[in-house]
Amino acid sequence: MKALAATVMSLSLATSGLAQTEQPLKITRNGAQPSSKGPAENFSGAVRVDSLFRADEPARVSGGHVTFEPGAHTAWHTHPLGQTLIVTSGVGLVQRWGGPVQEIRPGDIVWIPPGEKHWHGGTPTTGMSHYAISEQLHGKSVDWLEKLNPSQYGAAR
Amino acid sequence: MKALAATVMSLSLATSGLAQTEQPLKITRNGAQPSSKGPAENFSGAVRVDSLFRADEPARVSGGHVTFEPGAHTAWHTHPLGQTLIVTSGVGLVQRWGGPVQEIRPGDIVWIPPGEKHWHGGTPTTGMSHYAISEQLHGKSVDWLEKLNPSQYGAAR
Repeated sequence: MKALAATVMSLSLATSGLAQTEQPLKITRNGAQPSSKGPAENFSGAVRVDSLFRADEPARVSGGHVTFEPGAHTAWHTHPLGQTLIVTSGVGLVQRWGGPVQEIRPGDIVWIPPGEKHWHGGTPTTGMSHYAISEQLHGKSVDWLEKLNPSQYGAAR
Repeated sequence: MKALAATVMSLSLATSGLAQTEQPLKITRNGAQPSSKGPAENFSGAVRVDSLFRADEPARVSGGHVTFEPGAHTAWHTHPLGQTLIVTSGVGLVQRWGGPVQEIRPGDIVWIPPGEKHWHGGTPTTGMSHYAISEQLHGKSVDWLEKLNPSQYGAAR
């Protein structure tokens, strides 16, 4: 009877056209999604990107886990609605345009506000991994800019 | 002098009125935020909540890390814009209203769609921790409902 009641409720909700009934609870198992490489136009050095989730509309958040080998880092970039990093391992660096280079360690959380030009990555001698969580605006969560020149990254330490 | 310069810059940026310049890149260091207990009206058993981040407007995402001791679990609840769980340790359970109880393990990702009534927690014999990432709608990211009765949780295994 419980199952029947749930089915009836589910059907009546489904026919009401509410977005929340169109997408059931979903479990994505560890290992079900392939890792990818951070593309050379946006990253320097060896970077692995594990895209983890992208919420369906009307939600707009997506997240991944990014692993920088020593010396590897992003290009300069901005996020239309900002980005949160949660450092999970290693020691890394983050810098906003015109600001100091700052060291980040596991458990540290970085908030990059909307539109702020910045980069992040490993230190020259240590790798670093972080979750990266951001929201889409008009279908886009990042705007890539120029790569760091070697002196910009060299000045980091 | 650096502090003074930072204050002056911060003031001049604040008066420019641009959202992205009102909030500089911010690092919250590991250990800077106290843990809290999951309140008894919304949780059963011992639950530790580490609130980690809440993005400033116009962003709306927030996230925390939740640790359930064995047998501990949430009450039934919904999220207006859904929620994503990333399991980080242990073995746990999740169930949507009217659906099967499903086991979740580290690296598994759960998407709970907007408005779907559900609960999550540890198994009767194992703890479980997960990140929980959700978006606010009208200042709210969760609607708490009734607690599970013991037979609902007891039927979980």
